[in-house]
Amino acid sequence: MRTVSTEPVSTQTVSTHLESYVAGRWFRGTDDGEPVLDAVTGQEVTRVSSHGLDFAALVAHARDVGGPAVRRLTFHERATLLKELALHLGRFKDDFYALSLRTGATRRDSMVDIDGGIGTMFSFASKGKRELPNDTVVLDGALEPLGKGGTFVGQHLYTSRPGVAVQINAFNFPVWGMLEKLAPAFLAGLPSIVKPGSQTAYVTEAVVRQIVASGILPEGSLQLVCGSAGTLLDELGEQDAVAFTGSAHTAAILREHPAVLHRGVRLGVEADSLNCSILGPDVTVEDPEFDLFVKGVVTEMTVKAGQKCTAIRRVIVPEPVADAVVEAISARLARITVGDPADESVRMGALASLGQRDEVRKAIEALRTSADIVYGDPAHVEVVGADAERGAFLSPVLLRARPGAAEPHDVEPFGPVATVLTFGTVEEAVDLAARGRGSLVASLATHDPQVAREVARGLAPWHGRLLILDRDDAAESTGHGSPLPMLVHGGPGRAGGGEELGGVRAVLHHMQRTAIQGSPDMLTAVTGRWTTGSRRVLDGVHPFRKSLAELRIGDTIETATRTVTLDDINHFAEFTGDTFYAHTDPEAAAANPFFGGIVAHGYLVVSLAAGLFVDPAPGPVLANFGVDGLRFLTPVKVDDTIRVSLTVKQITPRSSADYGEVRWDATVTNQDDELVATYDVLTLVAKTAHRAEH
Amino acid sequence: MRTVSTEPVSTQTVSTHLESYVAGRWFRGTDDGEPVLDAVTGQEVTRVSSHGLDFAALVAHARDVGGPAVRRLTFHERATLLKELALHLGRFKDDFYALSLRTGATRRDSMVDIDGGIGTMFSFASKGKRELPNDTVVLDGALEPLGKGGTFVGQHLYTSRPGVAVQINAFNFPVWGMLEKLAPAFLAGLPSIVKPGSQTAYVTEAVVRQIVASGILPEGSLQLVCGSAGTLLDELGEQDAVAFTGSAHTAAILREHPAVLHRGVRLGVEADSLNCSILGPDVTVEDPEFDLFVKGVVTEMTVKAGQKCTAIRRVIVPEPVADAVVEAISARLARITVGDPADESVRMGALASLGQRDEVRKAIEALRTSADIVYGDPAHVEVVGADAERGAFLSPVLLRARPGAAEPHDVEPFGPVATVLTFGTVEEAVDLAARGRGSLVASLATHDPQVAREVARGLAPWHGRLLILDRDDAAESTGHGSPLPMLVHGGPGRAGGGEELGGVRAVLHHMQRTAIQGSPDMLTAVTGRWTTGSRRVLDGVHPFRKSLAELRIGDTIETATRTVTLDDINHFAEFTGDTFYAHTDPEAAAANPFFGGIVAHGYLVVSLAAGLFVDPAPGPVLANFGVDGLRFLTPVKVDDTIRVSLTVKQITPRSSADYGEVRWDATVTNQDDELVATYDVLTLVAKTAHRAEH
Repeated sequence: MRTVSTEPVSTQTVSTHLESYVAGRWFRGTDDGEPVLDAVTGQEVTRVSSHGLDFAALVAHARDVGGPAVRRLTFHERATLLKELALHLGRFKDDFYALSLRTGATRRDSMVDIDGGIGTMFSFASKGKRELPNDTVVLDGALEPLGKGGTFVGQHLYTSRPGVAVQINAFNFPVWGMLEKLAPAFLAGLPSIVKPGSQTAYVTEAVVRQIVASGILPEGSLQLVCGSAGTLLDELGEQDAVAFTGSAHTAAILREHPAVLHRGVRLGVEADSLNCSILGPDVTVEDPEFDLFVKGVVTEMTVKAGQKCTAIRRVIVPEPVADAVVEAISARLARITVGDPADESVRMGALASLGQRDEVRKAIEALRTSADIVYGDPAHVEVVGADAERGAFLSPVLLRARPGAAEPHDVEPFGPVATVLTFGTVEEAVDLAARGRGSLVASLATHDPQVAREVARGLAPWHGRLLILDRDDAAESTGHGSPLPMLVHGGPGRAGGGEELGGVRAVLHHMQRTAIQGSPDMLTAVTGRWTTGSRRVLDGVHPFRKSLAELRIGDTIETATRTVTLDDINHFAEFTGDTFYAHTDPEAAAANPFFGGIVAHGYLVVSLAAGLFVDPAPGPVLANFGVDGLRFLTPVKVDDTIRVSLTVKQITPRSSADYGEVRWDATVTNQDDELVATYDVLTLVAKTAHRAEH
Repeated sequence: MRTVSTEPVSTQTVSTHLESYVAGRWFRGTDDGEPVLDAVTGQEVTRVSSHGLDFAALVAHARDVGGPAVRRLTFHERATLLKELALHLGRFKDDFYALSLRTGATRRDSMVDIDGGIGTMFSFASKGKRELPNDTVVLDGALEPLGKGGTFVGQHLYTSRPGVAVQINAFNFPVWGMLEKLAPAFLAGLPSIVKPGSQTAYVTEAVVRQIVASGILPEGSLQLVCGSAGTLLDELGEQDAVAFTGSAHTAAILREHPAVLHRGVRLGVEADSLNCSILGPDVTVEDPEFDLFVKGVVTEMTVKAGQKCTAIRRVIVPEPVADAVVEAISARLARITVGDPADESVRMGALASLGQRDEVRKAIEALRTSADIVYGDPAHVEVVGADAERGAFLSPVLLRARPGAAEPHDVEPFGPVATVLTFGTVEEAVDLAARGRGSLVASLATHDPQVAREVARGLAPWHGRLLILDRDDAAESTGHGSPLPMLVHGGPGRAGGGEELGGVRAVLHHMQRTAIQGSPDMLTAVTGRWTTGSRRVLDGVHPFRKSLAELRIGDTIETATRTVTLDDINHFAEFTGDTFYAHTDPEAAAANPFFGGIVAHGYLVVSLAAGLFVDPAPGPVLANFGVDGLRFLTPVKVDDTIRVSLTVKQITPRSSADYGEVRWDATVTNQDDELVATYDVLTLVAKTAHRAEH
């Protein structure tokens, strides 16, 4: 199906001009481009230009070649490729780390970006296999009966869009920023066109070179634009999506693009926001939560030199402990060594560029309108192993807001800067947080469940993620600033209103949800899953005798009957110890509002049902590993006669084992054809008859 | 809590000037407003103006009074009010029907609007009680382990936004249009501000008068703007949402509003689209699906005189049967009597206004660029009981596209007009459908599952809803044009990209999803549901002895142990008939890849578990009505010893019964503390101890 290249590609050095990857070949801009400078030394790293790039061909290649190739694969096959790719990229981490130094990132910063990005691919690979079917469509929610006779039903279904996913990333995470968007889009069946922030695009380009050289992803499923996005958006239409990470300002420009306004292009925005961290009013200076809070703030101020969209910009603390908080943060900041990120002693590297430093200095000036600097000097910083002026170095700066300050809620310093604000009541703390007008994340240090409940429920509508930090989770906590692949990343309002990550949620965001209405048989045909009410196939062969290769959706066993006697119920009660009065005490059972007399145990009913449908001899069915959605609908009374229909509902071959999962629809009925119980039985079934003979 | 007014309000006549309902009182525009004309007679019905309306006060009232009042209620309490309101409005249907005649609607048209609207409220009331917790937050998805030690976990949570839902509706459904948006917004905890289309706003105003007079909804949770929306959007911010139904043109204007571009206002759009109906290539003229298809087209052309955003505009049929289709549709159209909707013989009433008729005539002219009229005359129509020129009457018009026609995919005639297009292959049919650039709905008449699968999977990415029509579902089908409360309504691209309805989905769209990270105890506190890993409460009282009022999240029974002997397993196999080899044949069981020897039946394990945790005497626990998510994790081998922890996970009192539901977390472990099985046990528990004694 694909050719894995054996040609090694070197990504240890950066070429003089970055290239884009377009329609299966590397493209160098037709002008000399813009210089990209080393954040630490100020020297030119490379030049970047997309001048002359054929954006129409780029999009057409994704749409006509990449998309169809990805969509031919099932979710599990796509997940397998993502895992393979993550393993592959792991082998070149040293190259990426070396390049990353030039962006001003320390080793720890690069870990967040590089290992974080690769880890996100592993996570999506795993979620894709465990939480999506081995198919190309996903069912959403339960079957909806639309008529009383059961001939007209509805089912929501997610399908892949025949479109393109354009990903416009920020400069601060050249690797993670690409991979965290690529993974869910790829799983969803979409080809990606990646446009990294130019300032650090050389790291992204190196990763894409290794991806392309590996031959793991189908051709056309990943393309790269280094330089300006040019007319890229003009090529997009109804089935396409743009995922943007960056400033609220640029986001607003994208929102006004005709493709978005008039052609239905879906725009997802994840914008920098004025995230806050709140110290609970229950926390005293002696509590472990106090130190955890202070550590968290300092980490977020200094990792990536504060150039994270999730960094803490507002430090919201109870008035009585504000002095102590300022003192503790300042003391920790004083221990942060700034300088050449290649130097082992350095804890904080450079900002991405001198331009960025200018921006941050301007923001600090704006903040000073209503806040005072209590730590650091925006004009001076001690630097280790580098030139403080040629590199984009900046001291961490802590401010303390004066009462009623507005600027800390409006001005975002995209660097190692935070402002302390104080509150009286918990309600005031929530109000202060909300003044950020929507953020990606907030954190709260508290060990009081009541404080946690009140603050978290107040903050939640304003945030995409909330971290509650206390002594219990501190050792395992991944911290305020880290988006995790299994949790949504994004936030309302100023944070852009988008949602990325969040496991399968991120995959489904890329797909189209459609309500399908029809007869049960038609829904079975369209969804690939057996729909209640549709045809059951009885071909005389017990379906437990069929391997995964032989089983078909709808294959059914209709069992013999069994009459449940009072002896059975008494015996089961005695044997299991389940002597609940409804099974043992006629008078008390008669008084029960639902039973009106002795009834069989629900567990007896499902046990007898298994006795009716099981085929005992060794065969393809290897194990019953679970039951879903068991509901007891009509009580089984003494001498009722039950029987079972068991029908193949869904078949999920595992790509990495010689068996797969079969979900069976089980219905138990009584002598009056009333539904006694319905449930799904989950089994593991060998792929071939041969396997079963082992 | 609230006062239900006993003052009857008359809605049998329309006042000379429509009023808005703002901040608890009725407001009449301060100028004389615009006239609204009767669609049938052309006479003035009323005048409409929002001139002088205080939009800031309107929004503030919703935000400060209505919102908090709704959010104090649980989902079940909100659902109860919706049901009460639906019952209340049902009593005034005759008034609404009488007014609706003046919009040009026949009795059948009005049923879709009025009964459809009330039915939607009932549906949301029912879904709210059955599918949402009796709480104010909703958990989303499974608990996510974030660390190996289990001290750091994540849970997604939906919370209500402290904002306002602005609903800008189209003129074609003055009742349904309001109620279908109001119901999910109210359930989500949002106050609504409704702005109906002016042309038919007198019907909406009458309904709002009855709602307000009933006193059922908390004050401030519903306000009405009759006339222009003025500066309404300028008042909105990050927590607010606008739901718009109308033209793609107006939608684009809203998308450019600063509130949307810069202040994070969520905009949901449901726009008219060029919906299609496809006749499957398998269908012959003799098949029942042929007639069903033709009937469907004619119904969609003529109900509401084709003024439905879901109406069929494109009739896509196999080339060989195109003549027969045109003939059959024309024959049926010839039987449609047009005229005064009050006349019993009339099947199609007037368009909403003379202006609308002009628009439709213009669209027909545009369509004639590439299509020929095969039925009807846009300039003339026979009319019963009315004046064909003073009323906005129009003949149904069927066109047939010439090869390669572009206009039928671009021009939307919002009236009784459709165009026939032909295809060769199924792929061509899908391509033609996609040329509508995204639609609300498509239908497909076929009795071939393979055609259904291929066409439906091809159409799905371009549509919000798909109807598959055949002989099996025809009798119960609700038809191409009817959005249903339990299915999503909306579509990609040209249809606006929004999603309304869809049961609980529509409620959740109005809420904020937030990932909460913390220790299990903190997550239990925030979510109100017991989180795996958090504290279990053992107070010496068996929790089965506690009523709903006494039970607390975390209440636990840790059971005694039971050793499972070979005799137990043999006996259970014999008793139930479940003689699967893994329980009965040592040699075969040893060869099984998962068991390696005789293991106990899963059903035996859960039966014995119940024997361990059940408290037998009559008490508050009335019944075990189900089991969710049962997974067998470690096989129970001969002489293994099991025990159970059963913990209260979620408590859901029912508002209309003297009991409620308790979800218990059950974990079965063995002598080595390995997890044998995990599941949720679902029980009904009496609200008070007294109830249990009955």
